[in-house]
Amino acid sequence: MSKIDHPVIPETMGLIPAITYLFLMFTFIPFMFLKYGVDNGTETHNSNGFKGLFPNSKLSTYLSCLLSLESMILLGLLDDLFDIRWRHKFFLPSIACIPMLIVYYIHFNKTSVLIPRFVAKRLPDYIISGNSIDLGWLYYVYMGSVSIFCPNSVNILAGINGLEVGQTIVITVLLLMNDLYYLAVGAGGNADAYSIHMFSVCFLIPFLGISTSLLQYNWFPSRVFVGDTWCYFSGMVFAVVGISGHFAKTLMLFFIPQIFNFIYSAPQLFGIIACPRHRLPKFNKEDGLLYNSYTEYEGEGNKPLNLKLYPIMNLLEKLKLISLVKKQKGDKEIIIKSSNLTLINLTIIWTGPIREDKLCLTIMIMQFAVGLTMLILRHSLAPMLFGFDNSWTMLNRFY
Amino acid sequence: MSKIDHPVIPETMGLIPAITYLFLMFTFIPFMFLKYGVDNGTETHNSNGFKGLFPNSKLSTYLSCLLSLESMILLGLLDDLFDIRWRHKFFLPSIACIPMLIVYYIHFNKTSVLIPRFVAKRLPDYIISGNSIDLGWLYYVYMGSVSIFCPNSVNILAGINGLEVGQTIVITVLLLMNDLYYLAVGAGGNADAYSIHMFSVCFLIPFLGISTSLLQYNWFPSRVFVGDTWCYFSGMVFAVVGISGHFAKTLMLFFIPQIFNFIYSAPQLFGIIACPRHRLPKFNKEDGLLYNSYTEYEGEGNKPLNLKLYPIMNLLEKLKLISLVKKQKGDKEIIIKSSNLTLINLTIIWTGPIREDKLCLTIMIMQFAVGLTMLILRHSLAPMLFGFDNSWTMLNRFY
Repeated sequence: MSKIDHPVIPETMGLIPAITYLFLMFTFIPFMFLKYGVDNGTETHNSNGFKGLFPNSKLSTYLSCLLSLESMILLGLLDDLFDIRWRHKFFLPSIACIPMLIVYYIHFNKTSVLIPRFVAKRLPDYIISGNSIDLGWLYYVYMGSVSIFCPNSVNILAGINGLEVGQTIVITVLLLMNDLYYLAVGAGGNADAYSIHMFSVCFLIPFLGISTSLLQYNWFPSRVFVGDTWCYFSGMVFAVVGISGHFAKTLMLFFIPQIFNFIYSAPQLFGIIACPRHRLPKFNKEDGLLYNSYTEYEGEGNKPLNLKLYPIMNLLEKLKLISLVKKQKGDKEIIIKSSNLTLINLTIIWTGPIREDKLCLTIMIMQFAVGLTMLILRHSLAPMLFGFDNSWTMLNRFY
Repeated sequence: MSKIDHPVIPETMGLIPAITYLFLMFTFIPFMFLKYGVDNGTETHNSNGFKGLFPNSKLSTYLSCLLSLESMILLGLLDDLFDIRWRHKFFLPSIACIPMLIVYYIHFNKTSVLIPRFVAKRLPDYIISGNSIDLGWLYYVYMGSVSIFCPNSVNILAGINGLEVGQTIVITVLLLMNDLYYLAVGAGGNADAYSIHMFSVCFLIPFLGISTSLLQYNWFPSRVFVGDTWCYFSGMVFAVVGISGHFAKTLMLFFIPQIFNFIYSAPQLFGIIACPRHRLPKFNKEDGLLYNSYTEYEGEGNKPLNLKLYPIMNLLEKLKLISLVKKQKGDKEIIIKSSNLTLINLTIIWTGPIREDKLCLTIMIMQFAVGLTMLILRHSLAPMLFGFDNSWTMLNRFY
């Protein structure tokens, strides 16, 4: 949409890297597991000095993750083909995550989460054990929500070249930094912690590979569009890693820009103020820059702005969180249009008219900055809140 | 093609039952495995009186089978969408079967097959052990070929309403009979044999369900076409069951009609005699029956029949394996056209002009008759050949 000559560009190109990733992960199985020798149901003493039972639960977890990813690709593809209705496609990830959750249930069924000490203190003893609270089946609802949230939040922060892929790369890098931190400190000699972060690294490094290569084609001026398939698939990779690694809470920290974008968009999504069909920034042929797009409140067919919202809108404008266009009408001025409520538009308010690739890069940098801060807080603040950083002592949650 | 008014009919409808099947199998996991209790890495003593380690290897085998099936669906769908070249799509199943083979390798790596006693006697001792010969890596080539063979052979015996689905139903029923035989005799008290045939039943009964329901729509006059997706998927179900159950040889017995169809078609497929673009039987508007379709050897653009082949063609005609149309030319008669070499055409030679659904039913009945005979021979002759029926003593091949 933001190109001078409107070229025809292939859609759903995210499918190819997604499938590539999948078959890469298939062929990766032997390299990941043969160090334990071939499973013959008995104790293995193999050349690499490994001793003990074959880590079958790890293998079936790995396989169930791949099943969830492949289901997500399949459903995402169907969505791209048949344009499933929004309120239906929203729940596609919850179907895709079934295999993973089932295997999680069979193997670990660990449904307790750590809660801050000061909260724990105030809760009756019969619902908490030590610092953790057992959510029971609610924990599966929670995991299901995580796997619905990640794909959709990647999907919602989109619209300019490179952003769909760019944001996933930033999140991947942040997750890898978190894993490497654990691996660096040897997870405080905790074998379980060590193995789950090794597990997540195994998923993330190949993903980083395919997403960077996809970015080359998707970056402005993009030669391919990635389609919902990619958004769903990449979001599911994060969900899979977070859930199987039991660090879904930490995962959420790296989705703050997407969460903010959702909350920020809410008034338009839920019809509190009018929402045009497209909220993409406006492209200006003359200078080739992107400008804010606005929602009109005047003229026929345009829902006028509720007067009660005026003070809020003016406050937001003062906070540079929205840009308004006003008109003197008699004694008081009225708002005739306001910038659309998306993170992309907000960024343009801060930077002013900007070229598409610069805009994308700016958003990615902001995203990384926020994520990095969260990562640092996670490992400095968390120990105070929870009484300990679980990179040092961790619940036995993996084989 | 064989309908009076040519209606537009949805293609690739095999996708829906395939995906249904997949998610059915996902949700089936707890019912299949929770009787062993939840896996906590230690010996489980659960209420159902089960004692021992959680059968993880069985779970990961199950998951790897589902992965192969889902990959097959994904690739089949891509094939239907983009019409992949024949010599490429032929090998799609070999990609899809990778996860299954890898997990098979990790868990069992049993690469020995039983061979008839009289053969074993004649082989040097260093390559055989008892009645079985260890194929090593060749066994994986063999399993790979099986998974290439099944989907493609289902794909090649097609062209009339209901046959794609009908033939899979017949094979499923035959496989179920084989399984039930083992289960009935309690597999001679062999727990492994019992469990693998239980495993295969778990895959086949749901498959029978979706394929029969699909047949209702695909039966003449069919309202849907199943597409390659179905042929590949259904073929892969059989491959998965046969390979993971280690009875690929028995599986082949039920594919004899498909094998015959392939051999019978070979002269045309490999261009020994001319091959028209379509070899489907000819539809006659007047009586609504299907007639043989022919390959022409006369007229421009038609490759004449090699004279060396005359005796063979005449012999085949005597054996009622081909129908020829001849013409007196001078002193000797020449063949001007011969029926196309497909099992469908051959059946029409035997039955005469026939309605599409009757034709499909005839082929299915023949297929079942052949399969049943093979099944009986399998359990009567095999013991003589191999020295024992492996329904009584079976190699330990499952956890």
